[in-house]
Amino acid sequence: MSNCDFFPDAAGIRPIKYSDGILRLIDQRRLPTEEVWLEYTDYHEVAEAIRSMVVRGAPAIGVTAAYGAFFGAQASKAEKYADFVTEFEQVCEVLAATRPTAVNLCWALERMKSLVRANADQPVGNLKIGLEYEAMAINEEDIRINMSMGRHGAALLPDQVRILTHCNAGALATGGYGTALGVVRAAVAAGKQVTVFADETRPFLQGSRLTAWELHQDHIQTILICDNMAGYLMSKGAIDAVVVGADRIAANGDVANKIGTYTVAVLAREHHIPFYVAAPTSTIDLQAADGSQIPIEERDSREVTHLGDQQLAPTGVAVFNPAFDVTPARLVSAIITQHGVARGNYTEQLAAFVQKDR
Amino acid sequence: MSNCDFFPDAAGIRPIKYSDGILRLIDQRRLPTEEVWLEYTDYHEVAEAIRSMVVRGAPAIGVTAAYGAFFGAQASKAEKYADFVTEFEQVCEVLAATRPTAVNLCWALERMKSLVRANADQPVGNLKIGLEYEAMAINEEDIRINMSMGRHGAALLPDQVRILTHCNAGALATGGYGTALGVVRAAVAAGKQVTVFADETRPFLQGSRLTAWELHQDHIQTILICDNMAGYLMSKGAIDAVVVGADRIAANGDVANKIGTYTVAVLAREHHIPFYVAAPTSTIDLQAADGSQIPIEERDSREVTHLGDQQLAPTGVAVFNPAFDVTPARLVSAIITQHGVARGNYTEQLAAFVQKDR
Repeated sequence: MSNCDFFPDAAGIRPIKYSDGILRLIDQRRLPTEEVWLEYTDYHEVAEAIRSMVVRGAPAIGVTAAYGAFFGAQASKAEKYADFVTEFEQVCEVLAATRPTAVNLCWALERMKSLVRANADQPVGNLKIGLEYEAMAINEEDIRINMSMGRHGAALLPDQVRILTHCNAGALATGGYGTALGVVRAAVAAGKQVTVFADETRPFLQGSRLTAWELHQDHIQTILICDNMAGYLMSKGAIDAVVVGADRIAANGDVANKIGTYTVAVLAREHHIPFYVAAPTSTIDLQAADGSQIPIEERDSREVTHLGDQQLAPTGVAVFNPAFDVTPARLVSAIITQHGVARGNYTEQLAAFVQKDR
Repeated sequence: MSNCDFFPDAAGIRPIKYSDGILRLIDQRRLPTEEVWLEYTDYHEVAEAIRSMVVRGAPAIGVTAAYGAFFGAQASKAEKYADFVTEFEQVCEVLAATRPTAVNLCWALERMKSLVRANADQPVGNLKIGLEYEAMAINEEDIRINMSMGRHGAALLPDQVRILTHCNAGALATGGYGTALGVVRAAVAAGKQVTVFADETRPFLQGSRLTAWELHQDHIQTILICDNMAGYLMSKGAIDAVVVGADRIAANGDVANKIGTYTVAVLAREHHIPFYVAAPTSTIDLQAADGSQIPIEERDSREVTHLGDQQLAPTGVAVFNPAFDVTPARLVSAIITQHGVARGNYTEQLAAFVQKDR
């Protein structure tokens, strides 16, 4: 198996392609005006691709990190299992340190490490082959999971629905198909009449650059707005449901997601609009009892003060740039996973969903 | 009187300067990186300056339109009063049509027309002189009003206060000193310890380009954030009060202001943070019973899809770009005017404030 392309007919772009030992990532920083694919075979470069947001989106980061871990293993000159394990764990540490909030990164690396731990009797060469297969399996499963999640989510939506989404939880944020946008795609596939309002999502503009781009490519009706317009639309009765993704979900159902998600959730509650979170079980972190235990990444001020080379703010002004926020479980109408939909008291249901993966 | 510069020591830039028959506007589209002053002597060009947002902010638009009306009058070749009036009313119509939401524009033009109406016995030459004086008076009064409003507003704030503001209701939005930022300046002048969190305010970025610029120039502690970060800050207990301006206030206290203001108001209520609106009585429109009667301007989609020449969204994507929204009176903790502070049931108090101007 050298090519990972199991769903040629699945709607939505595949942002992560692997074949013949080469990982290809679409450079998401250059969308929507340029479609540039970058090639990787070195785990340090993969780590930098995650850090610099060539690839972003919790599931996509997990998939990419898995390939990165394989490249790290591949490059190892260790012959003994113990040496190989030590080296491999260091590789995984480098990859894990690239982005702090999304837990799928750790989940994917943990899965790669488990394979190594479970096969201490194997020669190093076999472990390397196994890790390549495992990375491809994580990639392939992610798409299958998203399609399953999409069906569960679509069932929650009326036949005519105007959906607000924030950031990009689409094909580009995953192995393919998407989480929140997987729900959108499944609703469209089920014959529902769907309009998506896409928050542009400052400062990185994942909404205008990525969500609008991939939905536009799939001919799904999309209307782009600035983040601060969502409240006005809701007050005018123009939104029927909110569907977003997640970077980490705590055991109690608190949801860390792209900055601004919390504001959308408060607005949805104010206007009695359901607020749905679509995420695979790999996004659930049972170690985090609640949202207060989720680390929130702060990013460079330049993301706010500049756009490309264009300066938007006076030189020297102070900036606060948190990349994520936490939406408390009480504002979440339902959490959509590949195993089904959790509602109400999340603690038991999320734990049961995670149990199904074991 | 040929120079309108009564408050040389007032903090904050004067964005509208008039002397010797020439109106000078700082081009707010080029801030914060370039400080360019444009000169006007023709009312058509003044109208275009308002339309294209060389100058923006409800009070500043009013002041500018008053000078525009004077230029229109000045250029008239009419010798008879009746001809002059007809021509002058047409000039005012052109100016009034430039921006639909801010009512100060109509208020200022109405004041100019009243002067003409009240002096039907005067030769046209005298009317022109009178109109020049009236425009300068509107300009000068605006600053005085803002300083008065600032004192009333500052009294509402604690001695240590972290204020969130949206858009630019500063010196740049007025004749000088500012409405919301007038409150900030007055609080600083009163010795309070003030930190301002400035929403960048997409799509036109009045917050990052203008508010951050003018506060930074005045050495007032300012932290720039994206619009979608305000909710997170509030949830962390980092905001003590919200102070914004207004483009039009209905008789019942509903407030039309820059898009996103409504969202900030919903967030403020959710977090039990006072939400203050600072605006001169010229912003109050007693003809509009409530917010539903205020026209909401929609602007070009390019404001959302592009920044300068840089394309942010895929070609051909649909955009919704309302420039304002309406915050219902129930979410407004107090309305600060030059005559004092209105709270609770606004209808009587606002009417009484407007009455004081007559």
